[in-house]
Amino acid sequence: MEYLVHITVSLPPGMPSGERQELYAAEAVQAASLARAGRLVRLWRIPGRTANWGLWHANDATQLHDALTSLPLWPYMDIEVVPLARHPNDPAG
Amino acid sequence: MEYLVHITVSLPPGMPSGERQELYAAEAVQAASLARAGRLVRLWRIPGRTANWGLWHANDATQLHDALTSLPLWPYMDIEVVPLARHPNDPAG
Amino acid sequence: MEYLVHITVSLPPGMPSGERQELYAAEAVQAASLARAGRLVRLWRIPGRTANWGLWHANDATQLHDALTSLPLWPYMDIEVVPLARHPNDPAG
Amino acid sequence: MEYLVHITVSLPPGMPSGERQELYAAEAVQAASLARAGRLVRLWRIPGRTANWGLWHANDATQLHDALTSLPLWPYMDIEVVPLARHPNDPAG
Amino acid sequence: MEYLVHITVSLPPGMPSGERQELYAAEAVQAASLARAGRLVRLWRIPGRTANWGLWHANDATQLHDALTSLPLWPYMDIEVVPLARHPNDPAG
Amino acid sequence: MEYLVHITVSLPPGMPSGERQELYAAEAVQAASLARAGRLVRLWRIPGRTANWGLWHANDATQLHDALTSLPLWPYMDIEVVPLARHPNDPAG
Amino acid sequence: MEYLVHITVSLPPGMPSGERQELYAAEAVQAASLARAGRLVRLWRIPGRTANWGLWHANDATQLHDALTSLPLWPYMDIEVVPLARHPNDPAG
Amino acid sequence: MEYLVHITVSLPPGMPSGERQELYAAEAVQAASLARAGRLVRLWRIPGRTANWGLWHANDATQLHDALTSLPLWPYMDIEVVPLARHPNDPAG
Amino acid sequence: MEYLVHITVSLPPGMPSGERQELYAAEAVQAASLARAGRLVRLWRIPGRTANWGLWHANDATQLHDALTSLPLWPYMDIEVVPLARHPNDPAG
Amino acid sequence: MEYLVHITVSLPPGMPSGERQELYAAEAVQAASLARAGRLVRLWRIPGRTANWGLWHANDATQLHDALTSLPLWPYMDIEVVPLARHPNDPAG
Repeated sequence: MEYLVHITVSLPPGMPSGERQELYAAEAVQAASLARAGRLVRLWRIPGRTANWGLWHANDATQLHDALTSLPLWPYMDIEVVPLARHPNDPAG
Repeated sequence: MEYLVHITVSLPPGMPSGERQELYAAEAVQAASLARAGRLVRLWRIPGRTANWGLWHANDATQLHDALTSLPLWPYMDIEVVPLARHPNDPAG
Repeated sequence: MEYLVHITVSLPPGMPSGERQELYAAEAVQAASLARAGRLVRLWRIPGRTANWGLWHANDATQLHDALTSLPLWPYMDIEVVPLARHPNDPAG
Repeated sequence: MEYLVHITVSLPPGMPSGERQELYAAEAVQAASLARAGRLVRLWRIPGRTANWGLWHANDATQLHDALTSLPLWPYMDIEVVPLARHPNDPAG
Repeated sequence: MEYLVHITVSLPPGMPSGERQELYAAEAVQAASLARAGRLVRLWRIPGRTANWGLWHANDATQLHDALTSLPLWPYMDIEVVPLARHPNDPAG
Repeated sequence: MEYLVHITVSLPPGMPSGERQELYAAEAVQAASLARAGRLVRLWRIPGRTANWGLWHANDATQLHDALTSLPLWPYMDIEVVPLARHPNDPAG
Repeated sequence: MEYLVHITVSLPPGMPSGERQELYAAEAVQAASLARAGRLVRLWRIPGRTANWGLWHANDATQLHDALTSLPLWPYMDIEVVPLARHPNDPAG
Repeated sequence: MEYLVHITVSLPPGMPSGERQELYAAEAVQAASLARAGRLVRLWRIPGRTANWGLWHANDATQLHDALTSLPLWPYMDIEVVPLARHPNDPAG
Repeated sequence: MEYLVHITVSLPPGMPSGERQELYAAEAVQAASLARAGRLVRLWRIPGRTANWGLWHANDATQLHDALTSLPLWPYMDIEVVPLARHPNDPAG
Repeated sequence: MEYLVHITVSLPPGMPSGERQELYAAEAVQAASLARAGRLVRLWRIPGRTANWGLWHANDATQLHDALTSLPLWPYMDIEVVPLARHPNDPAG
C-alpha cells in the first residue's frame, strides 16, 4: 500500500553545526536503506523549507510507522500521513 | 519540473447519470493522453472521496495549467498545486 | 489494518421524505452487510449532527474505498479517513 | 458513555533518556490499570507521530477527566475529547 | 452531565414568511418543553447572528442527541457539542 | 450583561510544584471572591485540558477585563470572550 | 459600550437589479437613522469586497443585536461582533 | 487613509517587572506622540487579552509601518493591518 | 501605493457559454484600460484555478476599490487585498 | 518561471544587537546579488511585520530553493512559495 507523507524538520536553534551535519549524514544513509527495502519510493523538497513530500510503500500503518521512526531526524520531525487507494486512471496502474 | 497536484471533483447533484458516465469516460481518455505526453506521472485516489493526489511533470506552471484545464472534468475541479524541488535523498534522484 | 473514519451526511434540502426513508433503510442493510464482512467494526453518532465516527477494518485503502462507496448514502457523504497503527498500550493489542 | 480521545504527547526536547523511559514505563502500567477499570477500551497510534486516538468509557466527563489526568504523561499531553452517542447501525449496538 | 451547545440556524432563503413563523413558534414551544424536562438550562443569542449558545443537561450524549433532534428547527441547524466536567472553582459546585 | 469566557491555562514547564500549588490556591480564593461579587456565575472544566468555559456577568467589557486580570493565573491565561444577548427561549429569561 | 462589527453582505445571485437598488437605498436610510440614534459610529468598506468594518455603540449585546437586525440587508448578512474595553492609551479616552 | 490594526503583545515570561513597567510607560508616551501626529486615532483593548484593535491614519503603508515600528513594545508585537476604503453610509463620511 | 490582490472567479455553473465569453472579453478590455491608467501593473494565473494574483497601484484603498469593482467579472469575484510597504532590499526601490 | 514568495523572519529574542545588524547587512548584500542574477525581481514589506512578499524568477523550484537558502537570514525564515502561470490579461505579458 502506498502513502504520501509530509515531513517538516525543525532542528533546535542552538544545535552545533557538527552535530547537525552528522545527523544529516546519518539521515541520508538510513533513507538509502529504506529505499533499498522498498519503503521509501520518492522524496521531494518543498522549495524554501526544511520540509519534504515523500511517496512511501508499506504493508500497513504499523510498518510505515516503524520506517518513519527509524530515521535519525525523526525526533525533530512533524509528520502527516495520507493513505492512498488505487486510481483507475493511474498511468502506473 | 515535478508537481504534486491535489484535485477534488464536485459534480452538480442533479447531473444525469449518462452525462456523468460520458464525462468520466472522456476523463480517462484524456488522462491517458496526458500520461503519454509525459504530463501525468502517477495518480492516487484519496479513500472515501472523489478526490485524488497526482504527480505531474511540466516545464513550468503555464504548461501545467494547460494540461489541467484540458481535462473534461476540469470545470468541476478544485485544484491545489505544490511545486517540488529535487531532494538529495530521493531514491530516483 | 484499522481505520477511523469520520462521515458527514448532507442530504439535499428538498429530498422527499419517502426517498429519504428508503435511503436510510438501505443504508442500514448495507451497514449490516459490511459489519458481517468485517469491514465495519463500530459506529458512533456525533451528538446533534448527521455525522458519525466509525472504526473500520480493511486490507488496504483500496478495499476501504470500495466498502465506503458501497454505502447507499455515499453520494451525500463527506468522508475523512485516519489510518491507524498498533499502539503498545492498546488493551486489545 | 463512550468517548473518542485524541492525545498528542510533546516531551521537552532536553529530557534525559532515562527519565523519558521511566515515564513511558509508568504510562504503560497506568494505561493497563485504566483498561482493567474499564476506562480505556482501545488505543491506536497515529503513524509517524507521538499521538494516538483512543476509545474511552466513563460515566461522565468528570470521570473521564480524572482518568486522563491520572496518566503519568498527562502534563505533556494535548487532549481533545469527542463525546459519542449511540448509532442505530453500530455493529456492537 | 452538562454540555455547552453551539447552534447555528440557516433557513432556506426562499422559505415563505408564514412557514418561518410557524417553525419559530413551534421551536419556542419545544424549547419550553425541554426546559421543563430539565434538558435545556440556559440559552443565549450570539449578537447579530441566527445562532445561540446553550447550557444543556442530559444523562449522556444519546439523550442529548434525542433532545436536540426533537427541535422543529433541527433540520436547519448546525450543532457543536462541548462536554463539560466539574470545575473545583465553580460557584454552583 | 452575560459573557461566555474560554480560558486556557499554560504554566511554564519548569515552575516548581510549590509555586504552582500556591498559585492555584490563590486562584480559588479570587474565583470565590469574584463569584461573591457577581462577576463569575458558573465555571466548567474542559475534560482532559487545563482549560475551562465560564459564564461571567459584568456591566461592560472593561469591567469584565478588570475581573479577568485580577485572577492570579491571568499572566498564564489565553482568554476568548463571547458577548451574549438575550434569547427569547431562554428558560431563565 | 463600543463594539467592532464585521459584516459581509451576500445577496442571492438572481436578485433583480431593481430590488437590489431598493434594498441598498433602504439600508442607507436605516444606517443614517442608527447613526442619529448613536448606535452606528463609523463604517468602512473592505476594499474589493461587499463587506465592512463598523464601530458601533450600544448599552449591551441585546441592544446591539436589535440595531443590527433592524438593517434591511440583515437577512443577507454574516456578522461577527468584537466587544471592546477601554484602553489606557486611547487618544479619545 | 485609515487602517484597522490588530496588535497582540507577548512579553517574554521572564522579563523583570521593572523593565516591563518602563516599557509600558515608554509605550504610553509614544502612543500619545503618535496620536498628536495624527497617526493613532482610537485604541481599544480586547477584553481578557494583552491585545488591542486600533484605528490608525497614514498616507500609505510605509508611513504606517514607520509609526508601528516606532512603538517601544514593537519587538514583542504581532500585528495585522486591514486597509479601509470609504463607505457611503459612514456617519463621519 | 502598491497592493497585492488575490482574486478568485466563480461563475454560476449554468451560465450560457456565449454570456461567459462576452464577460471574459469585456474583462480583457477593462483590464487593459486599468493597465493604461496605471492601476493594474502585473497579473498572474494560479495554475489549475480560475484565480489570479495581481500587483495593483492606487492612491488609497478607495481608489483601489473603484478599480476592482469596475471589472465586468467583479460580481463573481472573491477578493483579498494585501497592502504593501517599501522594502529597503527591493531591487526596484 | 515567476514565483510569489512570502517570507516571515523570526530572529531569536536574545540575539545581540550587533549580530542582528551584521545579519541584516549581509542580507542586503545577498539580496542585491540575487537581484543582479535575475532571481529576485521585487520585494515588499508587509506593514507592521518582519515579513515580506517578493516576486522571484527561477528556471525551476530547485533553482529557487538554492536562491532562497543562500540568504543569510534563511535559517530564521518561514517561507511559502506560490508558482505563477502566465495570465492573458497581464500588462507585462
